[in-house]
Amino acid sequence: MALIVQKYGGTSVGTPEKIRNVARRLLETKGQGHSVVAVVSAMSGVTDSLLKLAREVSGSPTERELDVLLSTGEQTTIALTAMAVDDLGGKAISLTGAQAGIVTDGIHTKAKISNITPHRIHKMLDDGNIVIVAGFQGHTDSGAITTLGRGGSDLTAIAIAAALKADICQIYTDVDGVYTCDPRIVPTAKKIEVISYDEMLEMASSGSKVMQSRSVEFAKKFQVPFEVRSSFNNNPGTTVIEETPGMENVVVRGVSLERKQAKVTIQHVPDRPGVASRIFRTLADAHVIIDMIVQNVSIEGSTDISFTMNCEELAKMGHLLDNVVAEIGAGKIIKKEGVAKLSVVGIGMRSHSGVAAKLFEALSQGSINIQMITTSEIKTAVIIDESEIESAARLAHTAFGLDA
Amino acid sequence: MALIVQKYGGTSVGTPEKIRNVARRLLETKGQGHSVVAVVSAMSGVTDSLLKLAREVSGSPTERELDVLLSTGEQTTIALTAMAVDDLGGKAISLTGAQAGIVTDGIHTKAKISNITPHRIHKMLDDGNIVIVAGFQGHTDSGAITTLGRGGSDLTAIAIAAALKADICQIYTDVDGVYTCDPRIVPTAKKIEVISYDEMLEMASSGSKVMQSRSVEFAKKFQVPFEVRSSFNNNPGTTVIEETPGMENVVVRGVSLERKQAKVTIQHVPDRPGVASRIFRTLADAHVIIDMIVQNVSIEGSTDISFTMNCEELAKMGHLLDNVVAEIGAGKIIKKEGVAKLSVVGIGMRSHSGVAAKLFEALSQGSINIQMITTSEIKTAVIIDESEIESAARLAHTAFGLDA
Repeated sequence: MALIVQKYGGTSVGTPEKIRNVARRLLETKGQGHSVVAVVSAMSGVTDSLLKLAREVSGSPTERELDVLLSTGEQTTIALTAMAVDDLGGKAISLTGAQAGIVTDGIHTKAKISNITPHRIHKMLDDGNIVIVAGFQGHTDSGAITTLGRGGSDLTAIAIAAALKADICQIYTDVDGVYTCDPRIVPTAKKIEVISYDEMLEMASSGSKVMQSRSVEFAKKFQVPFEVRSSFNNNPGTTVIEETPGMENVVVRGVSLERKQAKVTIQHVPDRPGVASRIFRTLADAHVIIDMIVQNVSIEGSTDISFTMNCEELAKMGHLLDNVVAEIGAGKIIKKEGVAKLSVVGIGMRSHSGVAAKLFEALSQGSINIQMITTSEIKTAVIIDESEIESAARLAHTAFGLDA
Repeated sequence: MALIVQKYGGTSVGTPEKIRNVARRLLETKGQGHSVVAVVSAMSGVTDSLLKLAREVSGSPTERELDVLLSTGEQTTIALTAMAVDDLGGKAISLTGAQAGIVTDGIHTKAKISNITPHRIHKMLDDGNIVIVAGFQGHTDSGAITTLGRGGSDLTAIAIAAALKADICQIYTDVDGVYTCDPRIVPTAKKIEVISYDEMLEMASSGSKVMQSRSVEFAKKFQVPFEVRSSFNNNPGTTVIEETPGMENVVVRGVSLERKQAKVTIQHVPDRPGVASRIFRTLADAHVIIDMIVQNVSIEGSTDISFTMNCEELAKMGHLLDNVVAEIGAGKIIKKEGVAKLSVVGIGMRSHSGVAAKLFEALSQGSINIQMITTSEIKTAVIIDESEIESAARLAHTAFGLDA
């Protein structure tokens, strides 16, 4: 008999019938002798409707009141889910974030969980209930309602699993796990059975948006094992755990790709301290989110600095750097859209050489030109033309033996 | 500078634009130098939508979870109203029932307020906020969400006014006060400026459903003066207060009518102790709601007992009394639908004789036959054919000088 936390996202609870399906699944798990806590999101579409209402009453809704408003979405789902379990003959009880003891800081709309006092959940489990907790929300020490921002319900589930010392946390979603690559692009892509937190983080930050990085980082920090699986079938999903020695035998766990990237090169940047910080501080202060940064050694006192970002971020950047570049005495700014990023990820890279070489060889077979390269301990990433990203993904997938 | 509690019902906050109007009204009151607490209901239609969802997930939704579900309706309104005030340049903060310190018993869907600890409201008022409280809801000592049942938002407003010792509680609604009779039936009906709690109670229980009796009783018990007025104009409304000696000068305050009544007569009921209780206990146990009861003195050891109810209640009663009547040895049960009740109400009746006589004379002028009569200290009520109720109301209104 285990203690299991199951999280159901907005699409999994999107209609009354889907809520009844979730209830059936909860009862099934309970029927196997386990203690069950469910964390649920707002029904899909509800959050958008609430935001629309907010915009209709106010040009700039206050963040405190946005939290009061948006938290009704999950509150609606917990009540409906508990009713459905009851109607199917089970015993369930709902808890809002505040009632579940989820305490956060006071940063409305993107609060951080500071602690969880789960005695109420424990008591209700002891009374034989399936406990249904509202995801995405908590309250401050002084009792104000807060929400956790994007991916907040995943975070609630992981945090509750940590606080309860649950045996497993299952993240139910509309995909049935993490794949070696997007199967729509690489038909031979396979579901990954087990992946380490670090690999999952690199996959997530490279565009495999099964989960927000934030929740994976939280799980890693508190050593919460979790499984990503589908709420629409009974297939086993992908389990995410701390790495084990055996994992290193697989050199590359998966291939991840991110489209709609842009690259910016600043030419002839003088090679002296403080120049790079001027550039990136300016971007950070304007909340322009940068991905890769590449700077090579300087030749004759200057170098080129390149970085990448989403195309939307490029639009946000605009002419922000024009003055900076003039002040520091650098050359031209060259912007290029229509590029994409391909990453190969795997903790096995640390102990295996030749990963970069193999990737470059694979791409050269397809005559694909590499525009930028970065590497981390467990990831090798390249920037290529967006038009070539699909064939590049297939070539890399095959080269690293992931088709098998 | 006064402390004012204003309550806005579902139609007053039914759209984003109406919510902005409410916000304007709150700011206007605040701008006059007053401290303002607003109590708001769910936007009209929202509660019905939530109930529909509940029925879609469960054949018989649990009452605890219904409360969790329904309370989101008011929570949505408080957030939107606070945002609207903020957008219009004011300072507002929202509180759920629980946050406002409204503690109730644990009878879900029809909880009773047990106490209010308003220190948070006080603090927020001291900080210069317009405080927006969710009507209709509270929480138990152990932190479960509860709702107060029908008319619950009025009750919240009155209870908060009592706890804060507010100077006045204004109930904003879609009518602009209590009238001497329904103006659609009696065109000469006038708005009543001031009415006593008891008169208001008799008017309410006789079909003038401006407010639930429950809230009026609560106001009377805690001596909370309140005003019923329209949220769609600036006309003064009707103020409801403890009676003053001067009020007795008006013999009849208003004429109230209730349609779709039914009367039931049980003939030849044996005149011995316990017989009436058998009949009415049977009805009470089946939750059939009775209005008037009339029993005359017995002749030759038996009497006729008559009572009235809504037509829906008659349907609910069905053949419930057939066995009882046989057991106690009474005669036939005669049921008649298509009757209506006319009541004249006024605390002046206590010190003025001839009210009943004047009413009967007025009805006889219209050749209206009186089928039943009951009187209380401040009300005289008759049952007549429903087809004659409108002309009866006009005749009574004129006879008691209310047209003036």
